[in-house]
Amino acid sequence: MNTTEPSSWLRRSIMDTRGMALGQVGRTHLLDEKTQGDFRFTVGPYSAPVMEIDPGDRVVIETLDTFSGKIVDEGTSPNKVIQLPYIDPQNGPIMVRGAEPGDVLAVYIESMEPRGLEPSGTCCLIPNFGALAHNHNNPVMHEPLPEIVKKIRIADGSVHWSNTISFPYKPHLGAISVSPEMDSINSMTADQHGGNMDMPDICPGHIVYLPVRSLGARLFLGDAHACQGDGEVCGCAVEFPTTTTIRVDLIKNWKIDWPRLETPEAIMAIASGRPLEDAVKMAFYELIQWMVHDHGWDKLEAYMLLTQVARVRLGNIVDPKFSVGAMLDKKYLAPR
Amino acid sequence: MNTTEPSSWLRRSIMDTRGMALGQVGRTHLLDEKTQGDFRFTVGPYSAPVMEIDPGDRVVIETLDTFSGKIVDEGTSPNKVIQLPYIDPQNGPIMVRGAEPGDVLAVYIESMEPRGLEPSGTCCLIPNFGALAHNHNNPVMHEPLPEIVKKIRIADGSVHWSNTISFPYKPHLGAISVSPEMDSINSMTADQHGGNMDMPDICPGHIVYLPVRSLGARLFLGDAHACQGDGEVCGCAVEFPTTTTIRVDLIKNWKIDWPRLETPEAIMAIASGRPLEDAVKMAFYELIQWMVHDHGWDKLEAYMLLTQVARVRLGNIVDPKFSVGAMLDKKYLAPR
Amino acid sequence: MNTTEPSSWLRRSIMDTRGMALGQVGRTHLLDEKTQGDFRFTVGPYSAPVMEIDPGDRVVIETLDTFSGKIVDEGTSPNKVIQLPYIDPQNGPIMVRGAEPGDVLAVYIESMEPRGLEPSGTCCLIPNFGALAHNHNNPVMHEPLPEIVKKIRIADGSVHWSNTISFPYKPHLGAISVSPEMDSINSMTADQHGGNMDMPDICPGHIVYLPVRSLGARLFLGDAHACQGDGEVCGCAVEFPTTTTIRVDLIKNWKIDWPRLETPEAIMAIASGRPLEDAVKMAFYELIQWMVHDHGWDKLEAYMLLTQVARVRLGNIVDPKFSVGAMLDKKYLAPR
Amino acid sequence: MNTTEPSSWLRRSIMDTRGMALGQVGRTHLLDEKTQGDFRFTVGPYSAPVMEIDPGDRVVIETLDTFSGKIVDEGTSPNKVIQLPYIDPQNGPIMVRGAEPGDVLAVYIESMEPRGLEPSGTCCLIPNFGALAHNHNNPVMHEPLPEIVKKIRIADGSVHWSNTISFPYKPHLGAISVSPEMDSINSMTADQHGGNMDMPDICPGHIVYLPVRSLGARLFLGDAHACQGDGEVCGCAVEFPTTTTIRVDLIKNWKIDWPRLETPEAIMAIASGRPLEDAVKMAFYELIQWMVHDHGWDKLEAYMLLTQVARVRLGNIVDPKFSVGAMLDKKYLAPR
Repeated sequence: MNTTEPSSWLRRSIMDTRGMALGQVGRTHLLDEKTQGDFRFTVGPYSAPVMEIDPGDRVVIETLDTFSGKIVDEGTSPNKVIQLPYIDPQNGPIMVRGAEPGDVLAVYIESMEPRGLEPSGTCCLIPNFGALAHNHNNPVMHEPLPEIVKKIRIADGSVHWSNTISFPYKPHLGAISVSPEMDSINSMTADQHGGNMDMPDICPGHIVYLPVRSLGARLFLGDAHACQGDGEVCGCAVEFPTTTTIRVDLIKNWKIDWPRLETPEAIMAIASGRPLEDAVKMAFYELIQWMVHDHGWDKLEAYMLLTQVARVRLGNIVDPKFSVGAMLDKKYLAPR
Repeated sequence: MNTTEPSSWLRRSIMDTRGMALGQVGRTHLLDEKTQGDFRFTVGPYSAPVMEIDPGDRVVIETLDTFSGKIVDEGTSPNKVIQLPYIDPQNGPIMVRGAEPGDVLAVYIESMEPRGLEPSGTCCLIPNFGALAHNHNNPVMHEPLPEIVKKIRIADGSVHWSNTISFPYKPHLGAISVSPEMDSINSMTADQHGGNMDMPDICPGHIVYLPVRSLGARLFLGDAHACQGDGEVCGCAVEFPTTTTIRVDLIKNWKIDWPRLETPEAIMAIASGRPLEDAVKMAFYELIQWMVHDHGWDKLEAYMLLTQVARVRLGNIVDPKFSVGAMLDKKYLAPR
Repeated sequence: MNTTEPSSWLRRSIMDTRGMALGQVGRTHLLDEKTQGDFRFTVGPYSAPVMEIDPGDRVVIETLDTFSGKIVDEGTSPNKVIQLPYIDPQNGPIMVRGAEPGDVLAVYIESMEPRGLEPSGTCCLIPNFGALAHNHNNPVMHEPLPEIVKKIRIADGSVHWSNTISFPYKPHLGAISVSPEMDSINSMTADQHGGNMDMPDICPGHIVYLPVRSLGARLFLGDAHACQGDGEVCGCAVEFPTTTTIRVDLIKNWKIDWPRLETPEAIMAIASGRPLEDAVKMAFYELIQWMVHDHGWDKLEAYMLLTQVARVRLGNIVDPKFSVGAMLDKKYLAPR
Repeated sequence: MNTTEPSSWLRRSIMDTRGMALGQVGRTHLLDEKTQGDFRFTVGPYSAPVMEIDPGDRVVIETLDTFSGKIVDEGTSPNKVIQLPYIDPQNGPIMVRGAEPGDVLAVYIESMEPRGLEPSGTCCLIPNFGALAHNHNNPVMHEPLPEIVKKIRIADGSVHWSNTISFPYKPHLGAISVSPEMDSINSMTADQHGGNMDMPDICPGHIVYLPVRSLGARLFLGDAHACQGDGEVCGCAVEFPTTTTIRVDLIKNWKIDWPRLETPEAIMAIASGRPLEDAVKMAFYELIQWMVHDHGWDKLEAYMLLTQVARVRLGNIVDPKFSVGAMLDKKYLAPR
């Protein structure tokens, strides 16, 4: 399930028309837990690579859940087994041959499957975390909220929240990044390199574009969710371990400042920051740059058009930086 | 076009099951420009009523565009004809018999039709306004942006932005309010009383609920848009004058703190504030109160469920307060 | 105590050099509780005047504490006697003859004395209020904080917090306003009209300038504090009833957009907004306008100079809008 | 000038009473430009140490200005010689023997002297930077501001801004840090590790305390200012190269979450974040923890006391995170 086969739109995508592999699928690599070894909790240029691939190659990746699998049942205390910032373990870095600063890494997500014989996800109420609770950025003097752990069965294309409530299985990657130029950023934080955007549109069937800032690009990913509401308000989606299959390509001569996303129907620029309006403004600004530089728009015309038809998607409002996607239907991309 | 006939979902709506009129449609009133007389630029308990109606009554209203029709063509200078805060002229106040503080006013929007023989809307780039420009809250030292005025033809269910680009006609009310208790708030500003939320879901076929804070409720509305993107980033949607038909009812014994919305499939709480994350948090908090008080949810269970399946809609990020809707599909409303 | 006699700096102040009274003190009026009658909880053009004075006149005013005196001892429950928004009762409106939109009202605070035989102030921890607690803009899911009431003796020029800790008596007006043009704004909220700025520099010996927006200016004031830290973080200073003596004048042909303040040594622009950086930016922008229009500075030169020597004072970060003062020593006012 | 000799208050300071050296001054090391070699633009655990010292040792350090000295005169274009993020070059890392995660590093700043035969500082208006301009977090559609460079003579204890305006020489370190645990953070950004706080109180005569997160602590510092206004609004203080002398000690068994500061009269907690109110709240929360854990205060009593007498100092509102100090006079530290 949830495998998206290459389709005609992909052949017209930026990835397959401008990528070095031109849509040709290369070798398939396996990045299983054993190959990964130590998972990464910080995204930067200093960690040892786990694999090197060519543009066009496919990688099948075993991801851990955000808790590294340590919350084994509903009786586990998150506070006892999780120590911030050791959260959101990342696979990687995967090196991409030929990638250099100024390039763009394209990642097409083919599929995301839950791992395990009886697949399940985990949702917690973690004390001192979440949008409506005492947290690092929002200290209050109240007594802490209780810890709550829920184990949620994933089966038959559904996420079984309770005996009576099920949600559609809509898997996505909470975090995907290339390395920053010289900083190394914990896996909880989103920024221009990607990171923990918690954007549900980063899902099977869509393409993510990331601005390369170091030799080899250094791709990291993790923090899969089986579903997530906009804003991820309590701070914890249905967190689960996956087998995720991606195809990677490299685009030369394309300047982007923030992660971008392509779907069959739309393009999206994703920015992260605080307060939330700054993330919205940066996402729109990036989308305007895209329209101006790739599609010949006048910047003020683009600004006025987006005011009428852009869509905004809220990733999370719980992590160190909030993430927002500004999206435009491709049919409006041609300038007037 | 865009008239929504009462349908089966309406009969099961909160409005028609808990409203005093119980879905019975009363008399139809006409609030045309002449009956309105002076339009209102501040929403409060001090202005003279223009009409009194009974719960269940229908009102057909001639609204002005946000510029009071003063931008007659693309050669008009907004700076010369518009003087803040004289923007967003409101019809009203319409008094509702029997309304008193603590009640909820329900407004079902039946239809919104453009006015004029050759209907058109107006979009401007207004100096010192807009999310990506010098504005009141975001002063910068740069030279002003140019003024730009676009007249946009509305016909055949489309908004004709240019010779090559058309958008679907998706009319909605930018502003709808009851009076605050003792404050009077300019029509540009949204808050708990409603106001200038610029929420595209406040449209034909949907019901808005507003917390009554004064005798007679004092309903105001205006600022129609023929379409609008999330965030209304440049500050100006496709602004147009309409004939808007609403049906009004009154619900006793229902405590709400913010405007709420009901659609066939979903419920939404709408909050307004700055920074934007505060609006998001207040909207979610109101939605949780709704789930707890009307549907028997435990508050932390509700908080965790919304994290998985809530949707967030961004109204505007350009007005004195930013507006956000937090939305839940009705099918998830029953507690586990 | 705390009476500041007119001194030589006053004769060189903007008030006394540009005001209509030119420093001549007129009649003295008494606005005692009885003359005031109903105190005001909203600041606007709709309330009945309590008094009319001439430019240059002095007014001796009996103010109530922010709780209207209802918290009589440490056993009183704030939740039982206080109902928002009925907080911060204001004296006024005082009409000033000849004041019209575009003028500036100057208010020199001569003295503030505590009222009562055994003067005391009140500080509370009010549930659902304060910067580090659940509050309207910052909803959290925690259980409420406890109510705490402290009665604090004011004597001998000191505020006696406990048996061992005393603070200097530094009285100031938390709120002072003229009426907005057409809005009426609750007394908890600060904005361009003044309002609840909680700026400790609005104190005896200093002059406040307010932008007149309605005929007669309509001066309101109240919410005296015997002392207050920057930010007023728990939301409650040492609140006390006073006899406050002010002198009022009127300045023609001076355009200001926000409240301004003059001390013997410095000038300050006070802006209010959210998030806090917006208030800081608006205060600096207003200060730059002041330097440009009154002192001949180039705007970018002013911007760079302020970067080196401006001081920022934080009023409150607990009310609906946060207030900030940007201050410059007068000795730097002459452009290079 | 600006050398502060050890005085009696130092002997009672936290540094000299709880530090391993107990106020005994050890060896003096010279970290001149040559010893430093490459300056650092990111603060983390990955860079090679430049020096190792013992607790109690003194270090004399040659710092560069924020532009690495590349803006040689008023004709230099900042855009041509400066490439973000290569700004704020840091000396270090200096390793402190025995330092391990959980310790606190104490740094007493003895003196800061300008370097060069004719000492001068640099102030620029840098396009796309500054609080009142288009910048990374606040994109606007306006045309860029002009570049302006000012060279400012520093002599006779004054900063000579122009022929007619001079400011007092008040040198301080814009940036001082220990390494984060596993992240590496560019030198423009402040956070719990310290970083670019631009807090004028980090000056000769004061002590900074930093939370050690890695073996050896890894001390970095730089970005000296000859003076700076609150908020550093245009983004550029009077930037200058210095000879800075510090004394370093190590405190065991003291848990701090943010940088702290001690002066003869006061204690300050410094937090960094966005929006600005978050930084204020975190700084107050840290100050309350300090009062509770080191001085026996009840947390709510501390919260209410700070509301009356705390002072807030604004560092910068221009860098990736805004910095704020919450300060309490030591005389109020004893609980009632």
